[in-house]
Amino acid sequence: MLDRFKVPPADQIRVSEAALRRAVTAIFEQMHLTPEDAALGADVLVTTDLRGVESHGVSNMLRSYVQSYQRDAINPRPQWRIVRESPSTATIDGDGGLGIILGPKAMHIAIDKARTAGVGIVTMFNGRHLGAAGYHAMLAAQADMVGMCMTATQPSVVPTFGAEARFGTNPIAIAAPAKTQPPFLFDAATSSIAANKVQLAARVGSNLLPGWVTDKEGNPIMTETPPAAVRSDYLLLPLGATRELGSHKGYGLALMVETLATLLSGTLPFGLDRSTGYKHFFAAYNIAAFTDVDVFKANMDETLTWFRETRPVPGQERVLYPGLLEYEESEERRAHGIPLHAEVIQWFGHITQELGLPNLVTLEQSADTRG
Amino acid sequence: MLDRFKVPPADQIRVSEAALRRAVTAIFEQMHLTPEDAALGADVLVTTDLRGVESHGVSNMLRSYVQSYQRDAINPRPQWRIVRESPSTATIDGDGGLGIILGPKAMHIAIDKARTAGVGIVTMFNGRHLGAAGYHAMLAAQADMVGMCMTATQPSVVPTFGAEARFGTNPIAIAAPAKTQPPFLFDAATSSIAANKVQLAARVGSNLLPGWVTDKEGNPIMTETPPAAVRSDYLLLPLGATRELGSHKGYGLALMVETLATLLSGTLPFGLDRSTGYKHFFAAYNIAAFTDVDVFKANMDETLTWFRETRPVPGQERVLYPGLLEYEESEERRAHGIPLHAEVIQWFGHITQELGLPNLVTLEQSADTRG
Repeated sequence: MLDRFKVPPADQIRVSEAALRRAVTAIFEQMHLTPEDAALGADVLVTTDLRGVESHGVSNMLRSYVQSYQRDAINPRPQWRIVRESPSTATIDGDGGLGIILGPKAMHIAIDKARTAGVGIVTMFNGRHLGAAGYHAMLAAQADMVGMCMTATQPSVVPTFGAEARFGTNPIAIAAPAKTQPPFLFDAATSSIAANKVQLAARVGSNLLPGWVTDKEGNPIMTETPPAAVRSDYLLLPLGATRELGSHKGYGLALMVETLATLLSGTLPFGLDRSTGYKHFFAAYNIAAFTDVDVFKANMDETLTWFRETRPVPGQERVLYPGLLEYEESEERRAHGIPLHAEVIQWFGHITQELGLPNLVTLEQSADTRG
Repeated sequence: MLDRFKVPPADQIRVSEAALRRAVTAIFEQMHLTPEDAALGADVLVTTDLRGVESHGVSNMLRSYVQSYQRDAINPRPQWRIVRESPSTATIDGDGGLGIILGPKAMHIAIDKARTAGVGIVTMFNGRHLGAAGYHAMLAAQADMVGMCMTATQPSVVPTFGAEARFGTNPIAIAAPAKTQPPFLFDAATSSIAANKVQLAARVGSNLLPGWVTDKEGNPIMTETPPAAVRSDYLLLPLGATRELGSHKGYGLALMVETLATLLSGTLPFGLDRSTGYKHFFAAYNIAAFTDVDVFKANMDETLTWFRETRPVPGQERVLYPGLLEYEESEERRAHGIPLHAEVIQWFGHITQELGLPNLVTLEQSADTRG
C-alpha cells in the first residue's frame, strides 16, 4: 500500500485485533446474521486490516455494509444454492448475500472439487460486495492449492478511448503457498487504482496521482491533482491509464474478469442488468494434481527469494513481491494493534450506541485487562 | 495494434494468405517437422499475420524459429508426454518442441478434459516459444468454451523498483465466443510492451514511448525516445510503468503467469533454471458446465455491443473491444493479401534459396493464376 494512504500517526488510535473482532462480530449479529456468519465476516475484515489493506477493511467497508443491511440491499440470511455443477465446476445463485461471507463458502466448494477433480471453479451471481478478493484466494493456498478470485462490480471505469463507465474495478487475486517464505498473495484492481483508495486519499488529504481518474470529458488526467479539484463524477481509468502506456491491457483484463465471473454465471454485466448483482469467480488448482507439493513449495521459496533479492534501483531500499509487505504489516499489527483513524473510532462510537452495543474503546479496555 | 507499427505503404508488398501458408509450411518441412506439424505451425503464424499482429507473425518470428531449428535449440520431432494427470488437469513435458505446434495439442487436451470434467487445465514445461497465445485460446472458443493461455519466458522485465530483469513479458490471452459479434479475444504481455514490438518499432523507425523501457540504472524512461538513444541492454517495464501508475500490478500479473505456468508444472523460472525451457498454461472452461451456451453467447453479444457503443472521448472515432480490430483486419487481409515489409520479402528470398525451395514471389504468382 502506498505511504500516502497511511493514517498520519497523530490521527491514529490503535485497537487490538481481539477487540476489533468482537466489535465487528457484534455489529454483524445486530444486522441479523447468524453468529457463525457474523464471526466469518469479522474475520475477513479484520484479517484485511491486519494486512494493512485499509481500503478493504473496517474503515471503508464496514459502514457501507451496515448501511446496506439497514436498507435491505444485502440479504442477511441468503438461501444461496448451486444452480448447475459438474465434477470441477459449480454456478451459485448468491441470493443477495454479502460476498465477504459467501466468498469463503464458494471457495471451499472449489477446494473440495479440486481435491477430487484436480481443479475447482465456482462462479456466483446475485452477489454483493466481495471484500478483499485475496482473502478468499488465500483459503486455497492454506489447503496446498493455488487460489484465484475475481469480482465484477458496478461500472466506475472507462474503456480505452471511452467517455462512459462500462465496468467495475474488477480485481484479480491469486495466492500460492511457499515452504518458509511468506506466501505469494497478489490482489489488485484492474483499474489504475481501487475506487475506495480515491475516497481514502480524500480522507487523509492526499493528492490524486496522474493516471488515476478522468476529466469531465473522459480524458485521462495525467497531472497530480488535489481531490477537491476533481469533479465528483470523475471516472476511473483502466490499469495503464492511457493507450500509449497500455490502458487497453487494463481494459482487456477487466473484460476477462467480466467473462469469467459474469458471463460464465449466465448473466449480464451490472451496468446492463442491476438485478443480478455483483458476480464472483473462485478457482482452486490442487498442486498435487500437477506436481509434488514439496517441489512446488521449495521452488516457490527459491523464486520469491530471488525476486526479493533483486538489486534495487538507486534510491529504493528493496524489491518486494506481492504479499510480502502485507505479511510484515500483519505481524506488526498482531503485536501492536491496528491503527484506526480517529474518524473511524468516532463512527464505531455512533453505530455501537445506535445498536445498543458496547463501544469499541470499552471492548479494547476489557481486552487489555484480559490480555 | 498501434499505427506506429504499421508497415509504411511504400515499403509494403502484399502476399496472399495461400502463398504465405505454402511458403511457411515448406520452410518448416525443411526443418524436419512432420508435414502435419509444418502445416499447423504455418497456420498459427499466418493466422496471426492475418489478424495484423505482425509482432508474432512471420516477420518477427519465423526467422527466429528457423535459426533455432538450425542450431538445434528447438526439437523438430519432440516426444512430448503427459507426466501427471487428473480428471481436469495434465502436466506435459514438451521435450523442447516449438510452442506454436505443441500449444494446439495441449489446448485440445484441455478441451477434451473440459468436455467431461467441466474444466481442463494443462501446464507444459520444456517448452519453446509459444507464438501468439491468443491463437491457442481461440481453439477453446471455437469449441464453445472460454479459453485461456499464458506463457512464461526468459527474463527481460524488471520487477517494480528492481534494476535487474526477473521475468519474461509473460502474456495472458483469453478468448470467448459470441453469437453474431466477432469473438472477444484478448492477448497481451504483462509488460508495458511486448519485447518484439520494441524491435518492430526500431525496424519501422518509430520512437519508443514513455514507460516502455528502463535506463541503464533500471529507472523507467518516461519520455519519448528514439530507439538509437536507448542502450541495447535496456530492460522492459511491467504494465503500469511506474509504481504510482501501477507497475506493481503488471509485476504481480507476471508473477501470476509464472505461478500458473512454471510453478504448477513443477519447475523454476527460466532465469533460475534455463534447462526447463519456457513454460505454458492452457485452460478451457466448458460454458455448458456453467450455464446455457445460447444464453452465454447472447449475453456476450449484448455485452460486446454495449462496449463498442460506448461514447468516445473527443477526438477518438470509436471504442473498441479486444479482438474487434484484429477481426476486421483479418477480413481485409483475407480479401486483399497480407502486407509484408520489403525486408521480410528479401529474407524469404534468402531462406528459400538456401533451402532450395520456390521463392515466395513465385508462389504468389502461381497462387494468382490458381485463384
